[in-house]
Amino acid sequence: MSFFQEENDEYEDVSTVMVRNSHLDLMDQDILYHLALGSGSHDLRAMFGDVKFVCMGGTPKRMEQFAYRLMEEISYKIPTGTTLQDISRYSYRYSMYKVGPVLCISHGMGMPSVGILLHEIIKLMFHAKVVDPVFFRIGTSGGIGLEGGTVIISDEAVDGTLQPHLELQILGKTVKRSSVLDKKLQWELKSLAEPDDPYPTVIGKTVCTSDFYEGQGRMDGAFCDFTEEEKMEYLEKLKFNGVRNIEMESLAFAALTHHAGIKAAVVCVTLLDRLKGDQVKFY
Amino acid sequence: MSFFQEENDEYEDVSTVMVRNSHLDLMDQDILYHLALGSGSHDLRAMFGDVKFVCMGGTPKRMEQFAYRLMEEISYKIPTGTTLQDISRYSYRYSMYKVGPVLCISHGMGMPSVGILLHEIIKLMFHAKVVDPVFFRIGTSGGIGLEGGTVIISDEAVDGTLQPHLELQILGKTVKRSSVLDKKLQWELKSLAEPDDPYPTVIGKTVCTSDFYEGQGRMDGAFCDFTEEEKMEYLEKLKFNGVRNIEMESLAFAALTHHAGIKAAVVCVTLLDRLKGDQVKFY
Repeated sequence: MSFFQEENDEYEDVSTVMVRNSHLDLMDQDILYHLALGSGSHDLRAMFGDVKFVCMGGTPKRMEQFAYRLMEEISYKIPTGTTLQDISRYSYRYSMYKVGPVLCISHGMGMPSVGILLHEIIKLMFHAKVVDPVFFRIGTSGGIGLEGGTVIISDEAVDGTLQPHLELQILGKTVKRSSVLDKKLQWELKSLAEPDDPYPTVIGKTVCTSDFYEGQGRMDGAFCDFTEEEKMEYLEKLKFNGVRNIEMESLAFAALTHHAGIKAAVVCVTLLDRLKGDQVKFY
Repeated sequence: MSFFQEENDEYEDVSTVMVRNSHLDLMDQDILYHLALGSGSHDLRAMFGDVKFVCMGGTPKRMEQFAYRLMEEISYKIPTGTTLQDISRYSYRYSMYKVGPVLCISHGMGMPSVGILLHEIIKLMFHAKVVDPVFFRIGTSGGIGLEGGTVIISDEAVDGTLQPHLELQILGKTVKRSSVLDKKLQWELKSLAEPDDPYPTVIGKTVCTSDFYEGQGRMDGAFCDFTEEEKMEYLEKLKFNGVRNIEMESLAFAALTHHAGIKAAVVCVTLLDRLKGDQVKFY
Protein backbone atom coordinates (compact mmCIF):
# COMPACT_ATOMS: atom_id res chain seq x y z
CA MET A 1 0.00 0.00 0.00
CA SER A 2 1.42 3.39 -0.97
CA PHE A 3 1.78 6.33 1.36
CA PHE A 4 -0.90 8.18 -0.63
CA GLN A 5 -3.40 5.34 -0.12
CA GLU A 6 -2.67 5.25 3.60
CA GLU A 7 -3.27 8.97 3.89
CA ASN A 8 -6.44 8.65 1.89
CA ASP A 9 -7.77 5.84 4.07
CA GLU A 10 -7.04 7.85 7.16
CA TYR A 11 -8.89 10.86 5.79
CA GLU A 12 -11.93 8.80 4.87
CA ASP A 13 -12.11 7.23 8.31
CA VAL A 14 -14.10 10.24 9.54
CA SER A 15 -17.33 11.37 7.90
CA THR A 16 -17.76 15.05 7.05
CA VAL A 17 -21.42 14.70 8.00
CA MET A 18 -22.09 16.36 11.36
CA VAL A 19 -24.38 14.39 13.65
CA ARG A 20 -24.26 17.14 16.35
CA ASN A 21 -25.13 14.62 19.06
CA SER A 22 -22.48 13.69 21.61
CA HIS A 23 -24.79 11.07 23.15
CA LEU A 24 -24.43 8.77 20.13
CA ASP A 25 -20.86 7.93 21.17
CA LEU A 26 -22.18 6.43 24.40
CA MET A 27 -24.57 3.97 22.71
CA ASP A 28 -23.39 0.40 22.14
CA GLN A 29 -25.39 0.27 18.90
CA ASP A 30 -27.60 2.63 16.91
CA ILE A 31 -30.84 1.23 15.51
CA LEU A 32 -32.13 3.11 12.45
CA TYR A 33 -35.64 1.84 13.13
CA HIS A 34 -37.52 3.34 10.16
CA LEU A 35 -34.89 2.03 7.73
CA ALA A 36 -34.67 -1.48 9.26
CA LEU A 37 -30.91 -1.04 9.60
CA GLY A 38 -28.60 -0.83 12.62
CA SER A 39 -24.95 -0.24 13.46
CA GLY A 40 -24.90 -3.46 15.49
CA SER A 41 -26.76 -5.69 13.03
CA HIS A 42 -25.25 -4.40 9.76
CA ASP A 43 -21.76 -3.43 8.55
CA LEU A 44 -22.88 0.05 7.52
CA ARG A 45 -19.39 1.09 6.40
CA ALA A 46 -19.14 -1.87 4.00
CA MET A 47 -22.71 -1.43 2.73
CA PHE A 48 -22.83 2.36 2.32
CA GLY A 49 -19.23 3.65 2.52
CA ASP A 50 -19.16 4.36 -1.25
CA VAL A 51 -22.30 6.57 -1.31
CA LYS A 52 -21.82 9.95 -3.00
CA PHE A 53 -25.41 11.02 -3.73
CA VAL A 54 -28.69 10.56 -1.84
CA CYS A 55 -31.88 11.15 -3.87
CA MET A 56 -35.19 11.37 -2.02
CA GLY A 57 -38.69 11.49 -3.48
CA GLY A 58 -42.26 10.90 -2.34
CA THR A 59 -43.43 7.40 -3.20
CA PRO A 60 -41.73 3.98 -3.09
CA LYS A 61 -42.85 3.32 -6.67
CA ARG A 62 -41.33 6.52 -8.00
CA MET A 63 -38.00 5.88 -6.31
CA GLU A 64 -37.90 2.31 -7.60
CA GLN A 65 -38.52 3.61 -11.14
CA PHE A 66 -35.91 6.32 -10.59
CA ALA A 67 -33.35 3.71 -9.48
CA TYR A 68 -33.87 1.59 -12.62
CA ARG A 69 -33.74 4.71 -14.83
CA LEU A 70 -30.53 5.75 -13.08
CA MET A 71 -28.98 2.31 -13.72
CA GLU A 72 -29.41 2.92 -17.44
CA GLU A 73 -28.22 6.53 -17.30
CA ILE A 74 -24.95 5.72 -15.52
CA SER A 75 -24.59 2.26 -17.16
CA TYR A 76 -24.40 0.62 -13.75
CA LYS A 77 -24.00 -3.14 -14.05
CA ILE A 78 -25.14 -5.72 -11.52
CA PRO A 79 -24.30 -9.44 -11.72
CA THR A 80 -26.36 -11.59 -14.10
CA GLY A 81 -29.21 -13.16 -12.19
CA THR A 82 -29.51 -10.29 -9.71
CA THR A 83 -31.95 -7.40 -9.46
CA LEU A 84 -32.34 -4.33 -7.27
CA GLN A 85 -33.92 -4.99 -3.90
CA ASP A 86 -35.56 -2.56 -1.46
CA ILE A 87 -32.97 -2.39 1.34
CA SER A 88 -35.54 -1.08 3.87
CA ARG A 89 -38.36 -3.47 2.89
CA TYR A 90 -38.68 -4.84 6.42
CA SER A 91 -39.39 -1.39 7.86
CA TYR A 92 -42.55 -0.96 5.74
CA ARG A 93 -41.91 2.79 6.24
CA TYR A 94 -39.50 3.89 3.52
CA SER A 95 -38.12 2.16 0.41
CA MET A 96 -34.39 2.40 -0.30
CA TYR A 97 -32.55 1.34 -3.47
CA LYS A 98 -28.80 1.54 -4.01
CA VAL A 99 -27.37 2.01 -7.50
CA GLY A 100 -23.61 2.13 -7.01
CA PRO A 101 -22.80 5.48 -5.38
CA VAL A 102 -26.44 6.65 -5.42
CA LEU A 103 -29.08 5.94 -2.77
CA CYS A 104 -32.70 6.36 -3.95
CA ILE A 105 -35.14 6.62 -1.03
CA SER A 106 -38.86 7.38 -0.67
CA HIS A 107 -39.63 10.02 1.98
CA GLY A 108 -43.44 9.91 2.13
CA MET A 109 -45.48 13.11 2.38
CA GLY A 110 -44.86 16.07 4.67
CA MET A 111 -42.06 17.45 6.83
CA PRO A 112 -42.41 14.99 9.75
CA SER A 113 -41.98 12.05 7.36
CA VAL A 114 -38.94 13.51 5.56
CA GLY A 115 -37.58 14.65 8.95
CA ILE A 116 -37.53 11.13 10.44
CA LEU A 117 -35.83 9.87 7.29
CA LEU A 118 -33.18 12.63 7.37
CA HIS A 119 -32.27 11.97 11.01
CA GLU A 120 -31.67 8.32 10.13
CA ILE A 121 -29.92 8.91 6.78
CA ILE A 122 -27.63 11.54 8.33
CA LYS A 123 -26.70 8.99 11.02
CA LEU A 124 -26.29 6.33 8.30
CA MET A 125 -23.83 8.58 6.40
CA PHE A 126 -21.97 9.19 9.67
CA HIS A 127 -21.72 5.51 10.59
CA ALA A 128 -20.68 4.65 7.01
CA LYS A 129 -18.02 7.39 7.19
CA VAL A 130 -19.20 8.95 3.94
CA VAL A 131 -17.32 12.10 2.90
CA ASP A 132 -19.10 15.08 1.27
CA PRO A 133 -22.33 13.40 0.15
CA VAL A 134 -24.78 15.51 -1.87
CA PHE A 135 -28.50 15.19 -1.08
CA PHE A 136 -31.33 15.85 -3.53
CA ARG A 137 -35.05 16.04 -2.99
CA ILE A 138 -36.85 15.36 -6.28
CA GLY A 139 -40.62 15.74 -6.30
CA THR A 140 -43.85 17.19 -7.57
CA SER A 141 -45.26 20.62 -6.70
CA GLY A 142 -47.85 23.23 -7.56
CA GLY A 143 -46.43 25.99 -9.77
CA ILE A 144 -46.97 29.72 -9.20
CA GLY A 145 -47.37 31.38 -12.58
CA LEU A 146 -45.65 28.45 -14.32
CA GLU A 147 -47.23 25.83 -16.55
CA GLY A 148 -47.40 22.17 -15.51
CA GLY A 149 -44.21 20.36 -16.50
CA THR A 150 -41.81 23.16 -15.50
CA VAL A 151 -38.72 22.07 -13.54
CA ILE A 152 -37.93 24.31 -10.55
CA ILE A 153 -34.64 24.32 -8.68
CA SER A 154 -35.23 25.91 -5.27
CA ASP A 155 -32.93 28.76 -4.29
CA GLU A 156 -34.64 29.07 -0.92
CA ALA A 157 -37.24 27.09 1.06
CA VAL A 158 -39.68 29.20 3.10
CA ASP A 159 -42.83 28.55 5.14
CA GLY A 160 -46.34 29.82 4.33
CA THR A 161 -45.47 33.21 5.83
CA LEU A 162 -42.26 33.39 3.74
CA GLN A 163 -39.91 32.77 6.70
CA PRO A 164 -36.71 30.87 5.73
CA HIS A 165 -36.49 28.60 8.76
CA LEU A 166 -37.96 25.42 10.19
CA GLU A 167 -39.72 25.79 13.54
CA LEU A 168 -39.45 22.78 15.85
CA GLN A 169 -40.93 22.17 19.30
CA ILE A 170 -38.14 20.63 21.41
CA LEU A 171 -38.88 19.83 25.10
CA GLY A 172 -41.82 22.24 24.89
CA LYS A 173 -39.76 25.16 23.50
CA THR A 174 -39.75 26.50 19.93
CA VAL A 175 -36.41 26.21 18.12
CA LYS A 176 -35.65 27.71 14.68
CA ARG A 177 -33.29 26.16 12.11
CA SER A 178 -32.23 28.08 8.98
CA SER A 179 -33.29 26.47 5.69
CA VAL A 180 -30.21 27.14 3.58
CA LEU A 181 -29.58 25.48 0.19
CA ASP A 182 -26.26 25.47 -1.70
CA LYS A 183 -26.18 28.28 -4.32
CA LYS A 184 -23.35 26.77 -6.40
CA LEU A 185 -25.14 23.43 -6.66
CA GLN A 186 -28.28 25.24 -7.93
CA TRP A 187 -26.36 26.81 -10.80
CA GLU A 188 -24.56 23.54 -11.58
CA LEU A 189 -27.96 21.88 -11.89
CA LYS A 190 -29.37 24.76 -13.95
CA SER A 191 -26.42 24.45 -16.34
CA LEU A 192 -27.50 20.87 -17.10
CA ALA A 193 -30.71 22.11 -18.75
CA GLU A 194 -30.46 21.98 -22.55
CA PRO A 195 -31.97 24.65 -24.84
CA ASP A 196 -33.97 21.97 -26.68
CA ASP A 197 -35.42 20.36 -23.51
CA PRO A 198 -39.19 20.04 -24.01
CA TYR A 199 -39.71 21.77 -20.63
CA PRO A 200 -38.33 24.98 -19.03
CA THR A 201 -35.96 24.84 -16.02
CA VAL A 202 -36.00 27.81 -13.62
CA ILE A 203 -34.50 28.75 -10.25
CA GLY A 204 -36.80 30.27 -7.65
CA LYS A 205 -38.19 30.34 -4.14
CA THR A 206 -40.24 27.39 -2.82
CA VAL A 207 -43.01 27.62 -0.23
CA CYS A 208 -43.29 24.54 2.01
CA THR A 209 -46.57 23.89 3.85
CA SER A 210 -47.90 21.38 6.39
CA ASP A 211 -51.19 20.92 4.53
CA PHE A 212 -52.04 20.28 0.88
CA TYR A 213 -55.52 21.84 0.87
CA GLU A 214 -56.21 24.88 3.09
CA GLY A 215 -52.47 25.28 3.81
CA GLN A 216 -51.74 25.76 0.09
CA GLY A 217 -54.77 27.99 -0.50
CA ARG A 218 -56.71 25.25 -2.30
CA MET A 219 -60.49 25.60 -2.44
CA ASP A 220 -61.18 21.90 -3.12
CA GLY A 221 -60.48 20.40 0.31
CA ALA A 222 -63.06 19.17 2.82
CA PHE A 223 -62.93 22.62 4.44
CA CYS A 224 -62.49 26.10 2.99
CA ASP A 225 -63.33 29.38 4.75
CA PHE A 226 -61.78 31.82 2.26
CA THR A 227 -62.96 33.29 -1.04
CA GLU A 228 -61.46 32.98 -4.52
CA GLU A 229 -60.33 36.63 -4.21
CA GLU A 230 -58.52 36.01 -0.90
CA LYS A 231 -56.84 32.92 -2.36
CA MET A 232 -55.65 34.79 -5.49
CA GLU A 233 -54.41 37.68 -3.34
CA TYR A 234 -52.27 35.23 -1.35
CA LEU A 235 -50.93 33.39 -4.41
CA GLU A 236 -50.14 36.70 -6.16
CA LYS A 237 -48.30 37.82 -3.01
CA LEU A 238 -46.20 34.64 -3.18
CA LYS A 239 -45.46 35.29 -6.85
CA PHE A 240 -44.49 38.92 -6.12
CA ASN A 241 -42.03 37.65 -3.51
CA GLY A 242 -40.27 35.33 -5.96
CA VAL A 243 -42.06 32.09 -5.08
CA ARG A 244 -42.21 29.72 -8.05
CA ASN A 245 -43.75 26.62 -6.46
CA ILE A 246 -45.38 25.09 -3.35
CA GLU A 247 -44.72 21.67 -1.88
CA MET A 248 -44.53 19.97 1.53
CA GLU A 249 -40.97 18.82 2.33
CA SER A 250 -38.33 21.36 1.23
CA LEU A 251 -38.16 23.38 4.49
CA ALA A 252 -37.32 20.38 6.71
CA PHE A 253 -35.07 18.97 3.98
CA ALA A 254 -33.08 22.23 3.66
CA ALA A 255 -32.92 22.93 7.42
CA LEU A 256 -31.80 19.44 8.48
CA THR A 257 -29.21 18.94 5.71
CA HIS A 258 -27.79 22.43 6.38
CA HIS A 259 -27.60 21.67 10.13
CA ALA A 260 -25.61 18.51 9.29
CA GLY A 261 -23.24 20.35 6.94
CA ILE A 262 -24.54 18.49 3.88
CA LYS A 263 -24.71 20.10 0.42
CA ALA A 264 -28.29 19.77 -0.80
CA ALA A 265 -30.72 20.74 -3.57
CA VAL A 266 -34.48 20.62 -4.12
CA VAL A 267 -35.66 19.98 -7.69
CA CYS A 268 -39.40 19.72 -8.34
CA VAL A 269 -41.61 19.50 -11.40
CA THR A 270 -44.92 21.42 -11.38
CA LEU A 271 -48.12 19.39 -11.90
CA LEU A 272 -50.25 22.49 -12.55
CA ASP A 273 -50.25 26.29 -12.34
CA ARG A 274 -51.96 27.23 -9.07
CA LEU A 275 -52.88 30.64 -10.51
CA LYS A 276 -55.19 28.69 -12.85
CA GLY A 277 -56.62 25.96 -10.63
CA ASP A 278 -56.45 23.68 -7.61
CA GLN A 279 -57.27 20.11 -8.67
CA VAL A 280 -54.51 17.71 -9.63
CA LYS A 281 -55.71 15.23 -12.23
CA PHE A 282 -54.54 11.62 -12.33
CA TYR A 283 -55.54 10.77 -15.88
CA MET B 1 -91.24 -0.69 -1.57
CA SER B 2 -92.73 0.10 1.83
CA PHE B 3 -93.24 3.58 3.21
CA PHE B 4 -90.54 2.90 5.80
CA GLN B 5 -87.98 2.06 3.16
CA GLU B 6 -88.82 5.19 1.20
CA GLU B 7 -88.35 7.32 4.29
CA ASN B 8 -85.09 5.56 5.05
CA ASP B 9 -83.76 6.10 1.54
CA GLU B 10 -84.63 9.77 1.72
CA TYR B 11 -82.82 10.17 5.05
CA GLU B 12 -79.69 8.46 3.73
CA ASP B 13 -79.53 10.70 0.68
CA VAL B 14 -77.63 13.30 2.70
CA SER B 15 -74.39 12.55 4.53
CA THR B 16 -74.02 13.67 8.15
CA VAL B 17 -70.36 14.39 7.40
CA MET B 18 -69.76 18.15 7.16
CA VAL B 19 -67.45 19.17 4.35
CA ARG B 20 -67.67 22.89 5.37
CA ASN B 21 -66.76 24.01 1.86
CA SER B 22 -69.43 25.70 -0.27
CA HIS B 23 -67.08 25.76 -3.28
CA LEU B 24 -67.36 21.99 -3.74
CA ASP B 25 -70.93 22.38 -5.05
CA LEU B 26 -69.62 24.45 -7.94
CA MET B 27 -67.16 21.82 -9.18
CA ASP B 28 -68.26 19.50 -12.00
CA GLN B 29 -66.22 16.68 -10.50
CA ASP B 30 -64.03 16.18 -7.42
CA ILE B 31 -60.75 14.34 -7.90
CA LEU B 32 -59.46 12.65 -4.74
CA TYR B 33 -55.94 12.68 -6.13
CA HIS B 34 -54.05 10.91 -3.32
CA LEU B 35 -56.63 8.09 -3.26
CA ALA B 36 -56.79 7.65 -7.06
CA LEU B 37 -60.58 8.10 -6.90
CA GLY B 38 -62.92 10.75 -8.25
CA SER B 39 -66.60 11.70 -8.21
CA GLY B 40 -66.59 11.84 -12.02
CA SER B 41 -64.65 8.64 -12.69
CA HIS B 42 -66.16 6.42 -9.96
CA ASP B 43 -69.64 5.79 -8.56
CA LEU B 44 -68.58 6.65 -5.02
CA ARG B 45 -72.09 6.14 -3.60
CA ALA B 46 -72.24 2.59 -4.96
CA MET B 47 -68.68 1.78 -3.90
CA PHE B 48 -68.63 3.32 -0.42
CA GLY B 49 -72.25 4.06 0.57
CA ASP B 50 -72.31 1.15 3.06
CA VAL B 51 -69.22 2.26 5.03
CA LYS B 52 -69.73 2.48 8.81
CA PHE B 53 -66.16 2.45 10.13
CA VAL B 54 -62.90 3.93 8.82
CA CYS B 55 -59.70 2.54 10.39
CA MET B 56 -56.42 4.32 9.68
CA GLY B 57 -52.90 3.20 10.57
CA GLY B 58 -49.33 3.95 9.55
CA THR B 59 -48.09 1.47 6.95
CA PRO B 60 -49.71 -0.18 3.91
CA LYS B 61 -48.53 -3.60 5.16
CA ARG B 62 -50.13 -3.15 8.58
CA MET B 63 -53.45 -2.07 7.13
CA GLU B 64 -53.47 -5.00 4.69
CA GLN B 65 -52.83 -7.40 7.59
CA PHE B 66 -55.51 -5.61 9.63
CA ALA B 67 -58.01 -6.01 6.78
CA TYR B 68 -57.43 -9.77 6.53
CA ARG B 69 -57.59 -10.13 10.34
CA LEU B 70 -60.84 -8.17 10.32
CA MET B 71 -62.33 -10.46 7.65
CA GLU B 72 -61.87 -13.38 10.04
CA GLU B 73 -63.12 -11.47 13.07
CA ILE B 74 -66.39 -10.40 11.45
CA SER B 75 -66.67 -13.55 9.28
CA TYR B 76 -66.87 -11.43 6.15
CA LYS B 77 -67.19 -13.58 3.05
CA ILE B 78 -66.03 -12.64 -0.43
CA PRO B 79 -66.79 -14.70 -3.57
CA THR B 80 -64.67 -17.78 -4.22
CA GLY B 81 -61.81 -16.89 -6.52
CA THR B 82 -61.57 -13.28 -5.27
CA THR B 83 -59.21 -11.59 -2.86
CA LEU B 84 -58.90 -8.14 -1.28
CA GLN B 85 -57.34 -5.51 -3.53
CA ASP B 86 -55.77 -2.16 -2.64
CA ILE B 87 -58.39 0.31 -3.92
CA SER B 88 -55.88 3.20 -4.03
CA ARG B 89 -53.00 1.21 -5.55
CA TYR B 90 -52.70 3.58 -8.52
CA SER B 91 -52.07 6.57 -6.25
CA TYR B 92 -48.89 5.02 -4.77
CA ARG B 93 -49.61 7.31 -1.80
CA TYR B 94 -52.01 5.45 0.50
CA SER B 95 -53.32 1.88 0.55
CA MET B 96 -57.04 1.30 1.06
CA TYR B 97 -58.82 -2.00 1.72
CA LYS B 98 -62.59 -2.45 2.12
CA VAL B 99 -63.99 -5.27 4.25
CA GLY B 100 -67.77 -4.87 4.07
CA PRO B 101 -68.64 -1.79 6.14
CA VAL B 102 -65.03 -1.17 7.21
CA LEU B 103 -62.40 0.83 5.29
CA CYS B 104 -58.78 0.10 6.30
CA ILE B 105 -56.37 2.80 5.09
CA SER B 106 -52.68 3.56 5.62
CA HIS B 107 -51.99 7.19 6.58
CA GLY B 108 -48.17 7.34 6.47
CA MET B 109 -46.22 9.22 9.13
CA GLY B 110 -46.91 12.67 10.53
CA MET B 111 -49.76 15.18 10.61
CA PRO B 112 -49.39 16.47 7.02
CA SER B 113 -49.74 12.93 5.66
CA VAL B 114 -52.78 12.05 7.80
CA GLY B 115 -54.20 15.52 7.07
CA ILE B 116 -54.20 15.05 3.28
CA LEU B 117 -55.84 11.65 3.77
CA LEU B 118 -58.54 13.05 6.07
CA HIS B 119 -59.49 15.85 3.65
CA GLU B 120 -60.01 13.26 0.93
CA ILE B 121 -61.72 10.61 3.10
CA ILE B 122 -64.09 13.22 4.57
CA LYS B 123 -64.99 14.25 1.00
CA LEU B 124 -65.31 10.56 0.07
CA MET B 125 -67.80 10.00 2.93
CA PHE B 126 -69.72 13.10 1.81
CA HIS B 127 -69.90 12.03 -1.85
CA ALA B 128 -70.87 8.48 -0.81
CA LYS B 129 -73.62 9.96 1.45
CA VAL B 130 -72.41 7.95 4.43
CA VAL B 131 -74.34 8.59 7.65
CA ASP B 132 -72.60 8.70 11.06
CA PRO B 133 -69.33 6.96 10.22
CA VAL B 134 -66.90 6.31 13.08
CA PHE B 135 -63.18 6.93 12.45
CA PHE B 136 -60.35 5.17 14.28
CA ARG B 137 -56.63 5.80 14.22
CA ILE B 138 -54.78 2.67 15.31
CA GLY B 139 -51.02 2.90 15.69
CA THR B 140 -47.81 2.59 17.61
CA SER B 141 -46.48 5.09 20.15
CA GLY B 142 -43.93 5.69 22.89
CA GLY B 143 -45.38 5.13 26.37
CA ILE B 144 -44.91 7.52 29.30
CA GLY B 145 -44.51 5.42 32.46
CA LEU B 146 -46.15 2.42 30.77
CA GLU B 147 -44.48 -0.79 29.63
CA GLY B 148 -44.26 -1.72 25.93
CA GLY B 149 -47.41 -3.56 24.84
CA THR B 150 -49.87 -1.33 26.73
CA VAL B 151 -52.97 -0.24 24.78
CA ILE B 152 -53.82 3.44 25.22
CA ILE B 153 -57.14 5.01 24.25
CA SER B 154 -56.61 8.78 23.91
CA ASP B 155 -58.99 11.00 25.87
CA GLU B 156 -57.32 14.12 24.45
CA ALA B 157 -54.72 14.90 21.79
CA VAL B 158 -52.33 17.77 22.61
CA ASP B 159 -49.18 19.25 21.07
CA GLY B 160 -45.70 19.25 22.62
CA THR B 161 -46.66 22.25 24.80
CA LEU B 162 -49.85 20.46 25.96
CA GLN B 163 -52.21 22.67 23.91
CA PRO B 164 -55.36 20.82 22.72
CA HIS B 165 -55.58 22.29 19.24
CA LEU B 166 -54.05 21.98 15.78
CA GLU B 167 -52.34 25.11 14.45
CA LEU B 168 -52.57 25.60 10.68
CA GLN B 169 -51.13 28.31 8.44
CA ILE B 170 -53.91 29.32 6.03
CA LEU B 171 -53.18 32.09 3.50
CA GLY B 172 -50.30 33.19 5.74
CA LYS B 173 -52.41 33.42 8.93
CA THR B 174 -52.41 30.99 11.87
CA VAL B 175 -55.72 29.21 12.49
CA LYS B 176 -56.47 26.95 15.49
CA ARG B 177 -58.77 23.91 15.41
CA SER B 178 -59.81 22.14 18.62
CA SER B 179 -58.69 18.51 18.87
CA VAL B 180 -61.77 16.95 20.49
CA LEU B 181 -62.32 13.19 20.73
CA ASP B 182 -65.61 11.46 21.63
CA LYS B 183 -65.74 10.59 25.39
CA LYS B 184 -68.49 7.99 25.08
CA LEU B 185 -66.62 6.13 22.35
CA GLN B 186 -63.51 5.99 24.56
CA TRP B 187 -65.44 4.27 27.34
CA GLU B 188 -67.16 1.91 24.88
CA LEU B 189 -63.72 0.87 23.64
CA LYS B 190 -62.36 0.55 27.18
CA SER B 191 -65.27 -1.73 28.10
CA LEU B 192 -64.12 -4.16 25.38
CA ALA B 193 -60.91 -4.90 27.33
CA GLU B 194 -61.11 -8.27 29.10
CA PRO B 195 -59.63 -8.89 32.58
CA ASP B 196 -57.55 -11.77 31.17
CA ASP B 197 -56.11 -9.79 28.24
CA PRO B 198 -52.32 -10.31 28.25
CA TYR B 199 -51.89 -6.51 28.08
CA PRO B 200 -53.34 -3.54 30.03
CA THR B 201 -55.75 -1.06 28.39
CA VAL B 202 -55.79 2.50 29.74
CA ILE B 203 -57.35 5.87 28.86
CA GLY B 204 -55.12 8.94 28.90
CA LYS B 205 -53.76 12.02 27.22
CA THR B 206 -51.66 11.74 24.03
CA VAL B 207 -48.92 14.15 22.95
CA CYS B 208 -48.62 14.55 19.18
CA THR B 209 -45.35 15.90 17.72
CA SER B 210 -43.99 16.86 14.29
CA ASP B 211 -40.68 15.09 14.87
CA PHE B 212 -39.76 11.63 16.15
CA TYR B 213 -36.31 12.47 17.56
CA GLU B 214 -35.72 15.94 19.09
CA GLY B 215 -39.48 16.67 19.02
CA GLN B 216 -40.18 13.67 21.27
CA GLY B 217 -37.19 14.34 23.53
CA ARG B 218 -35.16 11.45 22.10
CA MET B 219 -31.39 11.58 22.52
CA ASP B 220 -30.62 9.16 19.66
CA GLY B 221 -31.33 11.37 16.63
CA ALA B 222 -28.76 12.97 14.35
CA PHE B 223 -28.97 16.10 16.52
CA CYS B 224 -29.47 16.59 20.25
CA ASP B 225 -28.70 19.75 22.22
CA PHE B 226 -30.27 18.78 25.56
CA THR B 227 -29.10 16.68 28.52
CA GLU B 228 -30.54 13.49 29.97
CA GLU B 229 -31.75 15.56 32.97
CA GLU B 230 -33.59 18.07 30.75
CA LYS B 231 -35.19 15.24 28.78
CA MET B 232 -36.37 13.46 31.94
CA GLU B 233 -37.71 16.72 33.38
CA TYR B 234 -39.82 17.18 30.20
CA LEU B 235 -41.09 13.58 30.13
CA GLU B 236 -41.91 13.71 33.87
CA LYS B 237 -43.82 16.95 33.25
CA LEU B 238 -45.84 15.18 30.54
CA LYS B 239 -46.56 12.30 32.95
CA PHE B 240 -47.61 14.72 35.71
CA ASN B 241 -50.08 16.30 33.27
CA GLY B 242 -51.76 12.98 32.48
CA VAL B 243 -49.91 12.17 29.23
CA ARG B 244 -49.67 8.42 28.68
CA ASN B 245 -48.10 8.27 25.22
CA ILE B 246 -46.47 10.24 22.37
CA GLU B 247 -47.07 9.79 18.64
CA MET B 248 -47.28 11.89 15.47
CA GLU B 249 -50.82 11.93 14.03
CA SER B 250 -53.50 12.20 16.76
CA LEU B 251 -53.75 16.02 16.86
CA ALA B 252 -54.57 16.43 13.15
CA PHE B 253 -56.76 13.32 13.27
CA ALA B 254 -58.80 14.63 16.23
CA ALA B 255 -59.01 18.23 14.95
CA LEU B 256 -60.08 17.40 11.38
CA THR B 257 -62.61 14.68 12.32
CA HIS B 258 -64.11 16.99 14.97
CA HIS B 259 -64.34 19.85 12.44
CA ALA B 260 -66.25 17.50 10.10
CA GLY B 261 -68.64 16.32 12.84
CA ILE B 262 -67.26 12.78 12.78
CA LYS B 263 -67.09 10.59 15.91
CA ALA B 264 -63.48 9.44 16.28
CA ALA B 265 -61.05 7.57 18.54
CA VAL B 266 -57.28 7.11 18.75
CA VAL B 267 -56.04 3.72 19.99
CA CYS B 268 -52.28 3.09 20.15
CA VAL B 269 -50.04 0.39 21.52
CA THR B 270 -46.78 1.43 23.19
CA LEU B 271 -43.53 0.03 21.75
CA LEU B 272 -41.45 1.06 24.77
CA ASP B 273 -41.53 3.14 27.96
CA ARG B 274 -39.88 6.47 27.15
CA LEU B 275 -39.02 6.96 30.83
CA LYS B 276 -36.63 3.99 30.37
CA GLY B 277 -35.18 4.60 26.88
CA ASP B 278 -35.33 6.06 23.39
CA GLN B 279 -34.43 3.38 20.85
CA VAL B 280 -37.13 1.27 19.24
CA LYS B 281 -35.84 -2.19 18.40
CA PHE B 282 -36.93 -4.14 15.32
CA TYR B 283 -35.87 -7.60 16.38
